[in-house]
Amino acid sequence: MNLEPPAMTGSVGIVSPCIHRFDAPLTLACGRTLASWELVYETYGTLNAERSNAILVCHALSGHHHAAGFHSPDDRKPGWWDNCIGPGKPIDTRHFFVVALNNVGGCAGSTGPRSVNPASGRIWGPEFPAVRVRDWVTTQRHLADVLGIGCWAAVIGGSLGGMQAMRWAIDYPERVRHCVVIAAALRLSAQNLAFNEIARKAITADPQFHDGWFLEHGTLPRQGLAIARMIGHVTYLSDELMRDKFGRELRRGSVTPGDEADAEFQVQSYLRYQGDQFADNFDANTYLLMTRALDYFDLARDFDDDAVAAFERARCRFLVVSFSSDWRFPPRRSREIVDALIGARRDVSYVEIEANEGHDAFLLPIARYHDALRRYLERARPAPATVRGSDAR
Amino acid sequence: MNLEPPAMTGSVGIVSPCIHRFDAPLTLACGRTLASWELVYETYGTLNAERSNAILVCHALSGHHHAAGFHSPDDRKPGWWDNCIGPGKPIDTRHFFVVALNNVGGCAGSTGPRSVNPASGRIWGPEFPAVRVRDWVTTQRHLADVLGIGCWAAVIGGSLGGMQAMRWAIDYPERVRHCVVIAAALRLSAQNLAFNEIARKAITADPQFHDGWFLEHGTLPRQGLAIARMIGHVTYLSDELMRDKFGRELRRGSVTPGDEADAEFQVQSYLRYQGDQFADNFDANTYLLMTRALDYFDLARDFDDDAVAAFERARCRFLVVSFSSDWRFPPRRSREIVDALIGARRDVSYVEIEANEGHDAFLLPIARYHDALRRYLERARPAPATVRGSDAR
Repeated sequence: MNLEPPAMTGSVGIVSPCIHRFDAPLTLACGRTLASWELVYETYGTLNAERSNAILVCHALSGHHHAAGFHSPDDRKPGWWDNCIGPGKPIDTRHFFVVALNNVGGCAGSTGPRSVNPASGRIWGPEFPAVRVRDWVTTQRHLADVLGIGCWAAVIGGSLGGMQAMRWAIDYPERVRHCVVIAAALRLSAQNLAFNEIARKAITADPQFHDGWFLEHGTLPRQGLAIARMIGHVTYLSDELMRDKFGRELRRGSVTPGDEADAEFQVQSYLRYQGDQFADNFDANTYLLMTRALDYFDLARDFDDDAVAAFERARCRFLVVSFSSDWRFPPRRSREIVDALIGARRDVSYVEIEANEGHDAFLLPIARYHDALRRYLERARPAPATVRGSDAR
Repeated sequence: MNLEPPAMTGSVGIVSPCIHRFDAPLTLACGRTLASWELVYETYGTLNAERSNAILVCHALSGHHHAAGFHSPDDRKPGWWDNCIGPGKPIDTRHFFVVALNNVGGCAGSTGPRSVNPASGRIWGPEFPAVRVRDWVTTQRHLADVLGIGCWAAVIGGSLGGMQAMRWAIDYPERVRHCVVIAAALRLSAQNLAFNEIARKAITADPQFHDGWFLEHGTLPRQGLAIARMIGHVTYLSDELMRDKFGRELRRGSVTPGDEADAEFQVQSYLRYQGDQFADNFDANTYLLMTRALDYFDLARDFDDDAVAAFERARCRFLVVSFSSDWRFPPRRSREIVDALIGARRDVSYVEIEANEGHDAFLLPIARYHDALRRYLERARPAPATVRGSDAR
């Protein structure tokens, strides 16, 4: 029996972001300190009385706090993971209280390069301190304290978000019951590093970048950001998907050699559109900062490069998910995580999903993937509260 | 018994490029005409009296006519395929007369965007006509006529060069005895198209590009060309090779968060170096033109998208070579060529080489690869000339 009105079926409905200001200084891994800082976040579902049903969703490179629902009835698109978060969805808001935030250094409302540096009165811009995955986990822990969440039922993330989930399990083992690591890796490969370097080079080479002071110059490094996004986009899609989606179709009818500016292949105009969209909406300094956090993430570095030793600190259970056609974080990188967890005698489930969509698959409602998430998270639900004084006779 | 002096062992020695000027107009596939045009080329070995031992080597995206030997005793590096061309090498100059040229539209001496447009007296720049693979084959056929070569013993090329070799077999079936297609494909994939588009976008977005008139502005779009080359370079290498070559090693000792400009990973400084080197030495308009020739190449297009029908025109024998870790032109793309050749009942040998080096492997002296080439080309040697009047008794 479905008691929800039809329009709301499966949706968390209209949501509003919250902002919390932290006035205690935050010292980052780089040694620099933010005197005060803010996090923007959203929550979906209801925190139970025991505060034991909270799930943290960590975002990837270009993500943010708006993971599900709509900000207004006029919104054309819901949050970025709306297909997965909501009543009856894999991250089921009838059972869980879901928290999604924008990380420090982001450009969607949390303190970042677009914020004002209180020491100078000037926008931070390129002077915003370097941020590492461990810093994000620290700030997320502060947010948990504010929300009164002593232990997450689960911390979940895909890609860079999965790296945050793993870091949670190691840095705060007593505060995570389940860790869900989707399409991630223990560290980037040299090829990953190379693509990030090229993307950053495209941004910094754009004369509108102005060494990161583009806002003070009243401009944006649109071309550089667009190229960076195009590079990212190609690496998020699989060769198969691109073949199926675009083939070698021309945007117009036929090949007219000599008329090159017009006769584009569809894949080219699609990429240009994606790049231009991104360039208007994302902060270049944030892009540099986030990709560097990705580059430097290395779960085992503090443990003599031994991921088993790293995971021996964890106390939670793990679900690891990979996608067959993901060549940015291929299944073998997820199996490295699984092998280290087994070596550390942790409880781990692993599922490799057959999917054509490449790295992007982690954002898509693929049936077997969502089933696996749903079934796994059923185990993460807190036991129904004991009815006090009940008589068992 | 080796009669060569030790220093010359295996080398074709000091070579000089030749230039031939063609005064007959050349009408290109795009419909435009070059009133006159020049090709720069080199030859190695000796053309036999029957003119039956000539091999044409076709270059790839950034290649040129200097394929083997040295231009002066002070040269630090030999031609780009010196490990494969020379006395005793797979393309053995003791038996073959080897011709290598710079294609029209190139920037190494043949008529291209850096040449003067005789109609305007101005450098062609971005107004140089669009060139297709079939145009290169036509110009190479004119060069064969000049050299008196009625039929090539073999036409050989890797990558974009392999596309020229296939086009030769189809357009001039009576003028090719053997066709060697290395690390190529019948057409680009959507992913290939995407990477080319991003590379072009990086060039055209560089403000020093000046819509292609950078030479008239006394400048070069160095940043854009460097990014284009970096993208290309990553796609030419395999993930495995990059791991083995660079791992996640830092150029300096340790990770110092907050000191990002300095603490680069080795793979990043390597890529920057490659990009900068290329940017000083390659013409941006040629890069655009060559990548578009790649994009539009589609062997089967004129045959109702039926590669079997295309190859039914061929009369030569084929060797097709692929490399296991090449993800730009992976083995399955070479098998498509082989399948079409079998469908057309052509004589084809196929070898897939286990190699970690990605697409770049086709330029490297990998033992099994060079053995396969050597053995195959032994079949392409002309039979020894009959000694007239010899007495068989």
